[in-house]
Amino acid sequence: MSEQAGDEAARAARIAAAYDPARFRADGEAVVALLAEALARAQRREGAVLPWAAPEAAARAWAHDFAEAEAGGARALLARVIAESHHLHHPRYVGHQVTAPLPLAALCDLVSAYLNNGMAVYEMGPVATAMERAVIEWMAGRIGFAVGPGGAGGVLTSGGSAGNLTALLAARQARAGFDVWQHGVAAGPPLALLAAESTHYSVARAAEIMGLGKDGVIPVPVDAAFQLRASALPAALAAAERAGRRTIAVIASAGSTATGAIDPLAAIADFATAHGLWLHVDAAHGGSALTSPSERTRLSGIERADSVVWDAHKMMLVPSLVTAVVFRDGARGHQAFAQEASYLFDGAAEPPWWDVGLRTLECTKLMMALKVYVALRVHGEAFFGDYVDHVFALSRRFAARLAASPDFELALPPAQNIVCFRHRPAGASAADLDALQARVRDHVVQAGHAYLVKTRLPAGVFLRTTIINPLTTDADLDAVLDAVRAAAQQAQQAQQA
Amino acid sequence: MSEQAGDEAARAARIAAAYDPARFRADGEAVVALLAEALARAQRREGAVLPWAAPEAAARAWAHDFAEAEAGGARALLARVIAESHHLHHPRYVGHQVTAPLPLAALCDLVSAYLNNGMAVYEMGPVATAMERAVIEWMAGRIGFAVGPGGAGGVLTSGGSAGNLTALLAARQARAGFDVWQHGVAAGPPLALLAAESTHYSVARAAEIMGLGKDGVIPVPVDAAFQLRASALPAALAAAERAGRRTIAVIASAGSTATGAIDPLAAIADFATAHGLWLHVDAAHGGSALTSPSERTRLSGIERADSVVWDAHKMMLVPSLVTAVVFRDGARGHQAFAQEASYLFDGAAEPPWWDVGLRTLECTKLMMALKVYVALRVHGEAFFGDYVDHVFALSRRFAARLAASPDFELALPPAQNIVCFRHRPAGASAADLDALQARVRDHVVQAGHAYLVKTRLPAGVFLRTTIINPLTTDADLDAVLDAVRAAAQQAQQAQQA
Repeated sequence: MSEQAGDEAARAARIAAAYDPARFRADGEAVVALLAEALARAQRREGAVLPWAAPEAAARAWAHDFAEAEAGGARALLARVIAESHHLHHPRYVGHQVTAPLPLAALCDLVSAYLNNGMAVYEMGPVATAMERAVIEWMAGRIGFAVGPGGAGGVLTSGGSAGNLTALLAARQARAGFDVWQHGVAAGPPLALLAAESTHYSVARAAEIMGLGKDGVIPVPVDAAFQLRASALPAALAAAERAGRRTIAVIASAGSTATGAIDPLAAIADFATAHGLWLHVDAAHGGSALTSPSERTRLSGIERADSVVWDAHKMMLVPSLVTAVVFRDGARGHQAFAQEASYLFDGAAEPPWWDVGLRTLECTKLMMALKVYVALRVHGEAFFGDYVDHVFALSRRFAARLAASPDFELALPPAQNIVCFRHRPAGASAADLDALQARVRDHVVQAGHAYLVKTRLPAGVFLRTTIINPLTTDADLDAVLDAVRAAAQQAQQAQQA
Repeated sequence: MSEQAGDEAARAARIAAAYDPARFRADGEAVVALLAEALARAQRREGAVLPWAAPEAAARAWAHDFAEAEAGGARALLARVIAESHHLHHPRYVGHQVTAPLPLAALCDLVSAYLNNGMAVYEMGPVATAMERAVIEWMAGRIGFAVGPGGAGGVLTSGGSAGNLTALLAARQARAGFDVWQHGVAAGPPLALLAAESTHYSVARAAEIMGLGKDGVIPVPVDAAFQLRASALPAALAAAERAGRRTIAVIASAGSTATGAIDPLAAIADFATAHGLWLHVDAAHGGSALTSPSERTRLSGIERADSVVWDAHKMMLVPSLVTAVVFRDGARGHQAFAQEASYLFDGAAEPPWWDVGLRTLECTKLMMALKVYVALRVHGEAFFGDYVDHVFALSRRFAARLAASPDFELALPPAQNIVCFRHRPAGASAADLDALQARVRDHVVQAGHAYLVKTRLPAGVFLRTTIINPLTTDADLDAVLDAVRAAAQQAQQAQQA
């Protein structure tokens, strides 16, 4: 055998080993066992929620030059990854709106990752494309949109930010009054969006990406419950006009990120209709409440939106990222990326629904629908409605206990499952409260007792919890409060010492 | 027990069952076994590459209302998903630039999906954040950027389209000459980008999303090898000026989607430098060639780019989506989403590297780095260089056989691992050639013999193959040609009958 042939044989052997089905199966079983054990540990409330390491220390610990192969090192490496990552399945994870995924949904992601069906065109993901249609139609039905020929349609995309951008691109093309896609934003009057001052940053960011500028988002005040004041919309529209801007859309939240507040959708829809504006509802968090017969009425009016964003990776219990962008008029989805819209406006046939890449920011994308579809079929829609009812009720009970505690202050009654509060230990001065919340939170989180976050409201800094893990109990929430109290005491003693 | 308490207990039992570690482990082992069997079947070349179903038939087959739970149905459902999906691990998959992922990388996605560490801020994904830094620094080193304080930096994002958008947003803010982020595109002169007429559609789409319009992309002609003609850049710049547009950037490809052509990066960099333009290199496909000591020289000049996009899910053998956006000056990454850039321009400290959400389109995102990091550590960098050498050599041999076949026409010698050709059976009229390629391709694909695509070049419609699967052999490629020949004969007989 020549040297070259020998090299080639060695290379082929390395490739064959990397793709060996038996090795895959053995590694796979080992990884599944590691994850099942992590899940059991989390349910026993063992270990830290977030195993704290400072960023620079973590960077040093994982720095690598990748020069040498470490064949056989995969399992140990993944065990370390699992041990040192944030444990969202721990029932005292009550932080950002990211879910403790259904284990079955994680297995669906394994299938997606292996199959790697990229979905830009139908052939690259036939099952995923069909499932995406089924999931979008189900969501459209829950929103209250008409489904079927000429009815609602939409896409799944990589997160709420991409989703809001996709919806607002469709709004820009539909309502600018000139062909922005062809000639650019500079070819017409400056454009504006109306959005609550508390709207998620991704809406302002979408406007800025689209070339509207920060000045292109006209803030609308909110009331004491952090809901957009529909009565303030006319003044916001007038402000845009005075600034020489043409308003194209109004954005409502259901619910907002900081507090979970649900804007008065019906009143906002009345305003949008009266002024010919596109109505976009960011229901990234709250969309899943549409699965609950008792909670869905709070989102009444959402069926009048032109576009809705709904994150399945928040309250549909699946891993990130699965964001649905649902259009009341499905054909609008082609306008978002309007290089294709010539098909529509030429009066020719609509481009086929099954080449999803025409309607998404992504060209190749993940088989996102799979985990939502399988979770819905295996567990049934009522499972999700039950889950929503459960965590919403848990949140209300938690809020009631906070309101009744002399050493805690509830920011507002929760509209959904986001509860904001602050600790006011006896003797704490009002001036120190903001710093105390931040200090206490960092201590609780870095000690691994629980994971919660903070937010700045007009009254100051508040602790913020999202009761999103289906296994969180009243006792877990009480334990979080006890950890906060203990951290505050420790901080006080440290100051006195 | 009251009715309400009974309902609550039943709900808790359903949730506990869905999150049962033992059930997860059993389901996980079953799913891993299904995938290992699919991998073995693909390696035996059993079954169709793409099990063809018409889109409407697939939609009907998977339509569902999700009203009832199908507990226990998960495994059967996933077995059906695997059977009916596109089999990229089949060695006769030679279609779009989507990879047959390393099985270990798919397991990493299972870990990511279970952990669901969302990475918007450091706390939400400490390990993933540290790994992302290691992967970006490794890539920056391969590109030839300086790494370390004040050096290169970047992010991983959800695909090449999002990656090109991210890079061009940074270019817009850096080179527009006014604060686009604050005031919008309409506040200054119309902007322009220079890009080869054959540039991937995501570049034009990014310009259109950013409000520059289709008119904002000035096409630069390509030569016979489909490389951007550097000598045509001055005329393109002059055309933008005549149209009243301020040119901010020039975009080069390495390699292009249709043919894999690598633009003359050094000559383009000279032009960009001379005119103060941002140089963006879309190396989504070709970036991985930087791992090969013998192939990397073809990308010489890439180290002079301001930004580079490199898809790990193409030639780094990991599942979609992992796109790196690497900036020569890492601080530019904060400018892409410049609401945060006030930190920079105020002269204050740079925002911390570890809150990745400040620099990505996504807020919550996937633990994308994990699979790249683990694959690199377990297999070592040289494995990937070997793989690149292997498929590039395979492509050159395939091209040589095509050039020597009287009944095939090679479009051009392949620059990388994309080979375009067409079938010219004896007696076929030149006028029918385009239709023949399309008909033959559809037949081969729908019969499941192989998966290849087509592309339109100036000379007409060509069949297009990407030799991306590490297990594809010379014999597999010959089998693809035989399938094409057989399909053409069948078509001819059908016409004569």
